[in-house]
Amino acid sequence: METIHLHHGSGGKLTRDLIRDLFVAQLSNGNAYCYGDSAIIDMPAGKIAYTTDAFVISPLFFPGGSIGKLAICGTVNDLAVSDALPVLLTASFIIEEGFPLNDLKNIVADMAETARLADVKIVAGDTKVVQKGQCDGLYISMSGIGIAPQDAEDKALGLWLEPGNKIILTGTIGDHGMAILNAREALGLQSELLSDCACLHKMLGGLRHWDFGVHFMRDATRGGVAMVLSELVEGKPYGIKIYEKDIPVRAEVNSMCDLLGFDPLYLANEGKAVLVVRQESAEAVVNYLREDELGKNACIIGEIQEEFPGMVVMDTLIGGHRVVDMPVGDQLPRIC
Amino acid sequence: METIHLHHGSGGKLTRDLIRDLFVAQLSNGNAYCYGDSAIIDMPAGKIAYTTDAFVISPLFFPGGSIGKLAICGTVNDLAVSDALPVLLTASFIIEEGFPLNDLKNIVADMAETARLADVKIVAGDTKVVQKGQCDGLYISMSGIGIAPQDAEDKALGLWLEPGNKIILTGTIGDHGMAILNAREALGLQSELLSDCACLHKMLGGLRHWDFGVHFMRDATRGGVAMVLSELVEGKPYGIKIYEKDIPVRAEVNSMCDLLGFDPLYLANEGKAVLVVRQESAEAVVNYLREDELGKNACIIGEIQEEFPGMVVMDTLIGGHRVVDMPVGDQLPRIC
Repeated sequence: METIHLHHGSGGKLTRDLIRDLFVAQLSNGNAYCYGDSAIIDMPAGKIAYTTDAFVISPLFFPGGSIGKLAICGTVNDLAVSDALPVLLTASFIIEEGFPLNDLKNIVADMAETARLADVKIVAGDTKVVQKGQCDGLYISMSGIGIAPQDAEDKALGLWLEPGNKIILTGTIGDHGMAILNAREALGLQSELLSDCACLHKMLGGLRHWDFGVHFMRDATRGGVAMVLSELVEGKPYGIKIYEKDIPVRAEVNSMCDLLGFDPLYLANEGKAVLVVRQESAEAVVNYLREDELGKNACIIGEIQEEFPGMVVMDTLIGGHRVVDMPVGDQLPRIC
Repeated sequence: METIHLHHGSGGKLTRDLIRDLFVAQLSNGNAYCYGDSAIIDMPAGKIAYTTDAFVISPLFFPGGSIGKLAICGTVNDLAVSDALPVLLTASFIIEEGFPLNDLKNIVADMAETARLADVKIVAGDTKVVQKGQCDGLYISMSGIGIAPQDAEDKALGLWLEPGNKIILTGTIGDHGMAILNAREALGLQSELLSDCACLHKMLGGLRHWDFGVHFMRDATRGGVAMVLSELVEGKPYGIKIYEKDIPVRAEVNSMCDLLGFDPLYLANEGKAVLVVRQESAEAVVNYLREDELGKNACIIGEIQEEFPGMVVMDTLIGGHRVVDMPVGDQLPRIC
């Protein structure tokens, strides 16, 4: 079996060959991905969104995706929820000596395919190889640039939020977290559950064409929906009320959570966003989202309210109330 | 001793606190570094240079710098040799569980100071924590954006190179490689040798104000000067001749290379660039570079020639000739 050697990271001939035969061959877009120190790209004047993320997920291949697909989706989604049109990405690879070359090829192929479908270009990269035992197979760091509207910053800061605004979830939660846990720990739970790993920018970008009054968007990754909502109200003069009965969770995820003691609100998602929208257009936004395969389970799960400022409160299924805190411990390490 | 826990990478409260108390506190520039998924930045129309690099150097602290300083300098230099003015950076951290918090603070402080002196802003970041044994302390991935001139791409591709052009080195070579080897392997060589780790963009950027005919620039990092020159002539109808007697190498580096069997031409540098310039202005470029502390040992080391196309040939000190090949093996892993 062909594997990655330290020499592949030396900066010499083997590095150059790996870049040429794998990364450039798979990821290049015309001349965009080049051997130089930087890619050179024409940009229009205006605002950009600029983001970075490291991906250390385990296992590298999981039901519904791979670290390669996840790296593209995660970066694209960070730009999309900043209301930007993702256009350019970079990828840097930290690879453990002895990593199977075939796995690397499959991961890079996943990246290429996901980027192609998402209409984004990977324009620069870097490869480092570390000795055996100094990395768990492969880590990928991405950065991304998107074209942002003039008001992107105000929206990102949540300056437009006000009581009465509705909280929308674009679909079921916890799929990614539970799919990874099941794959990683070999729980033996027979399950068709897939990670929801997907690029949301086309669906979310379409919202711009309507006067929907979308005041805030955030993808609910590490920390889950609980973290997104908690951060949103922290130190604010308003709070959030959500309704457990309205939160879409697959029966399978619910059962696994019951069995293992997890709370879906805290589980990571890689293809779901939380939106805060003007009350009057909430139904229209949900209807718009449901037109898209990635938003078919979208629904309103709550609203911003003046009661309990700074807090997220959930009306539970059994008729009580519960405070949804910011997650403190780590439910699942290396989930993304 | 306070250390990094898995919880610091969970995306919950501890992650948020670490970002707020360390990364934002040290690295933020006004509102630029924010908690959102992306930084939003105003950009002028025109070309940008866009680069990425992963840093896995061992040890994390070394004579002349740290992984933090190196990460900033390395990224800034990749943009600078692309003829761009570096303006924005992102940083993503992969941290091993149990990593000393104090070391992380010192590294982030180094990044902040280096970025401040370099007039670049770190506008976005990410933090992942992996279990003990899944990373060797700390890896940092950077990306960077620079404002590039209209002709940056042609220069990056080396389209203007022609026989007669002079090859200039901005200073002594091998300092970084040997300083790291000495620090890492505890060779016991008493040495004042420091890594040359430095941001070159101000010195190199100044070249733009003169009609010097600088046709190509590249920093000589992994693979050293040998790799830069070999890539430059590979498959081209011209070759490069260099003169061993003109290549600036510190006496200390020379002795260590003799002792340990290394060749300075293949050693990594982190503050040295190779320039190819029009013959008539070569002396003027050297004089300009020598005005700068970072270029005080700049000199002409050879030229592009028609003899031996595709090859780098060196006239040796003892009066012979030697082909300088692309490095094949790895002289020193984890050098950057």
